[in-house]
Amino acid sequence: MSFTLSMARLEAMLREDVPYGDLTTQGLGIAEASGRATLAARAPMTVCCAEEAATLFQLAGAREVRRVATSGALLEPGSPILIAEGPAGALQAASKVAQTLLEIASGIATRASRIRAAAQLGRPGVVVAGTRKHLPGAKDLSLRALTAGGCVPHRLGLSDSILVFAQHRAFLGREPPHLWVSRLRAAQPERKIAVEAESVDQAVQMAHAGVDLVQCDKMTPDQLAEVLRALGSHPSRPLIAATGGIHEGNAADYARAGVDLLVTSAAYSAAPLDVSVVMEKI
Amino acid sequence: MSFTLSMARLEAMLREDVPYGDLTTQGLGIAEASGRATLAARAPMTVCCAEEAATLFQLAGAREVRRVATSGALLEPGSPILIAEGPAGALQAASKVAQTLLEIASGIATRASRIRAAAQLGRPGVVVAGTRKHLPGAKDLSLRALTAGGCVPHRLGLSDSILVFAQHRAFLGREPPHLWVSRLRAAQPERKIAVEAESVDQAVQMAHAGVDLVQCDKMTPDQLAEVLRALGSHPSRPLIAATGGIHEGNAADYARAGVDLLVTSAAYSAAPLDVSVVMEKI
Amino acid sequence: MSFTLSMARLEAMLREDVPYGDLTTQGLGIAEASGRATLAARAPMTVCCAEEAATLFQLAGAREVRRVATSGALLEPGSPILIAEGPAGALQAASKVAQTLLEIASGIATRASRIRAAAQLGRPGVVVAGTRKHLPGAKDLSLRALTAGGCVPHRLGLSDSILVFAQHRAFLGREPPHLWVSRLRAAQPERKIAVEAESVDQAVQMAHAGVDLVQCDKMTPDQLAEVLRALGSHPSRPLIAATGGIHEGNAADYARAGVDLLVTSAAYSAAPLDVSVVMEKI
Amino acid sequence: MSFTLSMARLEAMLREDVPYGDLTTQGLGIAEASGRATLAARAPMTVCCAEEAATLFQLAGAREVRRVATSGALLEPGSPILIAEGPAGALQAASKVAQTLLEIASGIATRASRIRAAAQLGRPGVVVAGTRKHLPGAKDLSLRALTAGGCVPHRLGLSDSILVFAQHRAFLGREPPHLWVSRLRAAQPERKIAVEAESVDQAVQMAHAGVDLVQCDKMTPDQLAEVLRALGSHPSRPLIAATGGIHEGNAADYARAGVDLLVTSAAYSAAPLDVSVVMEKI
Amino acid sequence: MSFTLSMARLEAMLREDVPYGDLTTQGLGIAEASGRATLAARAPMTVCCAEEAATLFQLAGAREVRRVATSGALLEPGSPILIAEGPAGALQAASKVAQTLLEIASGIATRASRIRAAAQLGRPGVVVAGTRKHLPGAKDLSLRALTAGGCVPHRLGLSDSILVFAQHRAFLGREPPHLWVSRLRAAQPERKIAVEAESVDQAVQMAHAGVDLVQCDKMTPDQLAEVLRALGSHPSRPLIAATGGIHEGNAADYARAGVDLLVTSAAYSAAPLDVSVVMEKI
Amino acid sequence: MSFTLSMARLEAMLREDVPYGDLTTQGLGIAEASGRATLAARAPMTVCCAEEAATLFQLAGAREVRRVATSGALLEPGSPILIAEGPAGALQAASKVAQTLLEIASGIATRASRIRAAAQLGRPGVVVAGTRKHLPGAKDLSLRALTAGGCVPHRLGLSDSILVFAQHRAFLGREPPHLWVSRLRAAQPERKIAVEAESVDQAVQMAHAGVDLVQCDKMTPDQLAEVLRALGSHPSRPLIAATGGIHEGNAADYARAGVDLLVTSAAYSAAPLDVSVVMEKI
Repeated sequence: MSFTLSMARLEAMLREDVPYGDLTTQGLGIAEASGRATLAARAPMTVCCAEEAATLFQLAGAREVRRVATSGALLEPGSPILIAEGPAGALQAASKVAQTLLEIASGIATRASRIRAAAQLGRPGVVVAGTRKHLPGAKDLSLRALTAGGCVPHRLGLSDSILVFAQHRAFLGREPPHLWVSRLRAAQPERKIAVEAESVDQAVQMAHAGVDLVQCDKMTPDQLAEVLRALGSHPSRPLIAATGGIHEGNAADYARAGVDLLVTSAAYSAAPLDVSVVMEKI
Repeated sequence: MSFTLSMARLEAMLREDVPYGDLTTQGLGIAEASGRATLAARAPMTVCCAEEAATLFQLAGAREVRRVATSGALLEPGSPILIAEGPAGALQAASKVAQTLLEIASGIATRASRIRAAAQLGRPGVVVAGTRKHLPGAKDLSLRALTAGGCVPHRLGLSDSILVFAQHRAFLGREPPHLWVSRLRAAQPERKIAVEAESVDQAVQMAHAGVDLVQCDKMTPDQLAEVLRALGSHPSRPLIAATGGIHEGNAADYARAGVDLLVTSAAYSAAPLDVSVVMEKI
Repeated sequence: MSFTLSMARLEAMLREDVPYGDLTTQGLGIAEASGRATLAARAPMTVCCAEEAATLFQLAGAREVRRVATSGALLEPGSPILIAEGPAGALQAASKVAQTLLEIASGIATRASRIRAAAQLGRPGVVVAGTRKHLPGAKDLSLRALTAGGCVPHRLGLSDSILVFAQHRAFLGREPPHLWVSRLRAAQPERKIAVEAESVDQAVQMAHAGVDLVQCDKMTPDQLAEVLRALGSHPSRPLIAATGGIHEGNAADYARAGVDLLVTSAAYSAAPLDVSVVMEKI
Repeated sequence: MSFTLSMARLEAMLREDVPYGDLTTQGLGIAEASGRATLAARAPMTVCCAEEAATLFQLAGAREVRRVATSGALLEPGSPILIAEGPAGALQAASKVAQTLLEIASGIATRASRIRAAAQLGRPGVVVAGTRKHLPGAKDLSLRALTAGGCVPHRLGLSDSILVFAQHRAFLGREPPHLWVSRLRAAQPERKIAVEAESVDQAVQMAHAGVDLVQCDKMTPDQLAEVLRALGSHPSRPLIAATGGIHEGNAADYARAGVDLLVTSAAYSAAPLDVSVVMEKI
Repeated sequence: MSFTLSMARLEAMLREDVPYGDLTTQGLGIAEASGRATLAARAPMTVCCAEEAATLFQLAGAREVRRVATSGALLEPGSPILIAEGPAGALQAASKVAQTLLEIASGIATRASRIRAAAQLGRPGVVVAGTRKHLPGAKDLSLRALTAGGCVPHRLGLSDSILVFAQHRAFLGREPPHLWVSRLRAAQPERKIAVEAESVDQAVQMAHAGVDLVQCDKMTPDQLAEVLRALGSHPSRPLIAATGGIHEGNAADYARAGVDLLVTSAAYSAAPLDVSVVMEKI
Repeated sequence: MSFTLSMARLEAMLREDVPYGDLTTQGLGIAEASGRATLAARAPMTVCCAEEAATLFQLAGAREVRRVATSGALLEPGSPILIAEGPAGALQAASKVAQTLLEIASGIATRASRIRAAAQLGRPGVVVAGTRKHLPGAKDLSLRALTAGGCVPHRLGLSDSILVFAQHRAFLGREPPHLWVSRLRAAQPERKIAVEAESVDQAVQMAHAGVDLVQCDKMTPDQLAEVLRALGSHPSRPLIAATGGIHEGNAADYARAGVDLLVTSAAYSAAPLDVSVVMEKI
């Protein structure tokens, strides 16, 4: 699901940081000097937004931009990401936004990649999905980084998928789940029916109600294993997803419990990973 | 510097999550049921974006929204933030965006508040400023949360302030600093001249070159104390800011070293703090 | 999946029609006269965008707006939709945009509703889904009308669903379908795997490759029945959708063939349905 | 009045369809494969938006785009419109939006062109104008297609032209038309004064009141001929436009009645015309 | 043609001035104090944007806003325009934007009004139209102010009107004007055909070519009188407009020469007219 | 602080003027003719927005654009600014917007440059700053032109700087200034504290309260000299800025009085300076 942020979004990022020119560069009188900016990883990272960083330098007026790394690649410390040449004014205008975007997106991508790697140690083939609990207004960037790290988006929002929470059940009274599951299936045959369960019993009950996926919230790996045992290896058993408090440290345990899917928001608040910007006069 | 996010921004956040309606609520047939949503803190927090959360419920069509908490307030676990009533469809449409916004903004505000509290333990009156290294495109939200936590914005970007980095000095050759400092002061008398220094010697050199603020990057508290001793308590000595790797755990040490200002990006990647959403049929 | 268009979108619609004031109303000198506008259905219709029409009058400055009909309701000719009162200038500014929006959206909703009714005559419970082949840039309005007519959105676009076309298979060479189906399922376990087939044989082959849904393009009802017979009533047989040239006139035949889903773009080019606007001085 | 849609608009169309990447292409692992997409007319058509389709492929990252057809040209079935080469991911991202835009815009352009051709058979030189009753928010696309089909925009909205409807007259009481016509002419000497009439008598009355154009709503060709006879061939007689229910089937009759102008919304709801997209691996 | 600026535009103006909160008000600790802001004319003025100023205070969070003046009204120095009450933070956030908008818009409106008054002294009934040579991107505000001053918009741009300049004739070679005038009239019967002339002879030649309006550029009143004499008082003579260098000081002379229309850009660069803002604690 | 307007902004300017095509050029049938447009200064000017004008022609579809002048350069009458070649339709679409932007921006830049030159005659080194009292919504363009003329932006708005007005003091009661100045300094150590004074006594009082800058509003040069004498030449005396009614005619006098800074809005309402557009068929 790799994709790049739109031109409109990137131009807005530049203007957010430099709405009316660069007081320092102009005040120093160096805006027209010719320079080269080299951005490189300072830490091991799954890099993300190298393509966007290159576009930022172009939009700011760099003469030539050479992108060396590709989003999703694993970089060693010191690996170059991109090299831009042009007037110092252009390089200064783009460099902090490009650096910050790379650092934050690569931080998310790297953490996503590590959660996934940990999960796959626990059980190869398990899928790690990122929730929609990212910074509102930054779904593009959040999913861009998540997928660069090898995870997949869980649901994009309310319009593309079915997921029944306790907050919906509060309005359903004592109606037996298989009834409202049928109603959902009849309404949306092209989408899987997912339900969130908050206990082992509830998970089993929901599975029997005919859903396609039971998302088990805040259960332990042991509880998840219990859910899976209770359901047996029937080919048509629903997918079991674990969610709530999953991170790099416990992803293997959850995967080992046998779940099909880990659903996590942990990557979004990853600390940024350092990217160096070296500027030279040329 | 308290302020709220704009209506346009909040409506865009809602539409990002629910661009074309809510498949689950509609499929269940509960959109018109009357309900109440109560959002409350689950962890101790400096809450942020309670006002925006209230607006989100109004924009989504809630009949009545009562905001209980105010951004910047310290909440105990269980403290209510807001109560919204209206059709379940409206409540479901707003609740996850409102919750996520509250959780992330309160996470940032709380961490900002803790860094500041730690710093003030080290030296009352020290100011903690947040950098511009937040998610590009989210300056409004990032500064909103930062200031709710009692910190101040450092510089907004390149257009409002002067800060000379090594990346600028690369274009200045061997020109003595007092010359380019004078040039900057002549160009921008209304703004303070700040310079980043990367060693004790460089910090002292810059201070003597006549700048208003020396931002000391990646120095230890001891090194900062050394800078301050070297400069003495002259009333016109520049402000000394510490930056690079400052967080809640070391802020007191830095403050105790005597610096005027701590400059940090640490708050922006704070983990979200849980906010509960309880939905009832009424 | 009912939802309304955003305020930003509605304000933009108003400004598109009246960017700089109303030459006629001002030139006549009647802008401040007090009036009443009554909008009513002129034809039988499944009305759509009554809520948005009301908002348009409010945004234009009407003093009081009473909405009488609700989107999705079946109206008889002559049934009122809304009544707005206020200065003539406000009423004139909103009335054509509101009328046109109602006419076009109700045209789509009505045709969607008729296709669905025809299909359900053929086989109760069959679902009718609208494609993404609407006017680019108008997905909100197109899906708003489609769902007001009782249909569901098929896929929103490329980011929310899996659908393999011949245009993808051109890049897959002779790889056996079950291999790439497995690859897709491993990558996206939360989403159904759909494939478009262009012949009976291909449909059967794809069904056996393990997909969740086979979308049969431009086949006759007889061919679809043949596909279904070939697959038998196995509980895990994939859903069968018919697409390509489906409209009100043949929907019943397709449904009768036993398909689970009809996928159509026919509603989007429905002719608008007349809505009258009567203006009175009060 | 040929013009192309703006870059911002085209980028928004792409993002509407592919907001967060392409699940299918990525899941299949074919995004980087090199391919060629050929778009061609499947039906005879007055093509529209070939230029925009080319831009869509470029924005999506195609390496090379060769546009073969020009908006406004009459194409035979099978005629190529454009050929794009590049990574499969780029081709898939653009192809459906480009195809749908071409199909809908060419549908409108073709119907516009046929109405105009029919009208000119009735009376060479008659002008066909398209109303503002298109999808709100899509004036750019609607007028783009209309003019590619050889028609002209009627009025753009309320800010560029004068047209008095019954809905205005409701506020004018018994004031004799020549008085308010004079008022309008004094206010807006640079614009023609048009009035809509709903009967032969009213049309004649309005013509005598000194307007520049009488727009006759829902009259028959015979009634229009009667209006024209009543006014005679005086060189300063107002233009007579027919509106209300005009389409390809009756345009010649209306033109033959002698009117100067046919005003119609019929083109906007034209069915899309098929455009094929063939994808090859290269 | 009175109209108000859109909510989206006004919110953007507020955010342009206060993107991230008000450092001064917050730093002083007075944001929550209750206050009253009174805006009043300091100079005689045709006020403009009083309605928008009121909306700005509401958007910023004022509790109560009472608008006293109406756009287009002639105010004496000291006349109040609006009174807003609420927290000081809200009043400070809106007051400078509201004041500046009022000052600039009223400056334009007042100058427009004076040019018009001067022109009407020269010849009652002459119309004064404002060109499209305003600040690009500010057509809404520019026309809002122009019409509040009693002038009319000339052409909105290239899409709503016909005006042939020398820059077009450079492409027409020696083709006799009546031929291309006929072409234009055939293409756009609903719009008047205007041509700009740069000499008396050219003006007369164009009038004889059958245009509806001759716009005489940079001619003296005497030259315009000569044009009018040459054309006589034939009822079908084209309208004669004067343009180029027209201002309050010479408008009467031009009007007295008998022209129908003065076309001017002079109002747009009017100096702002002072509006006082008095703030009280309440 | 030189910078250019964003692509999004420039495209919006083009579309404001030509939203739906060019009736005249199309009606004349000359859109495809090949031409050259030459823009040149008609008056001596400090040119501004030559880069943006070039971009406008490119966005409109010019084949080749050669920019001759650079923003900030002093041009003689007749000096070319740019030469664009391409289809007449593209040249016509861009030429008026480019011309108007150049004329207005160069008018502002030139007046800014003259105020600055006058001030520097009075006292070399004095800085001239432009206020935020420009057309709301046009800060980018206003500051672009101001800085092209050698002036600097004063404050960008409320979020980047501290400036205490009488309107703030209304909420501070009898609190001694040094107390609230300390409060501001403690809150915002990185920004200078500025206060506006309305009399000599108040200016001196504020200077003694420890502010960094006293902005003296509507004082005469003599009064300013008195303020400066009262403060003496103490190295830590605050900067003294003059504001209120400063223009090219009195700037030298103010500078001669010894102030550090002149703050003025006078440039923003400068009359546009003529730029010629010559179009040739090639």
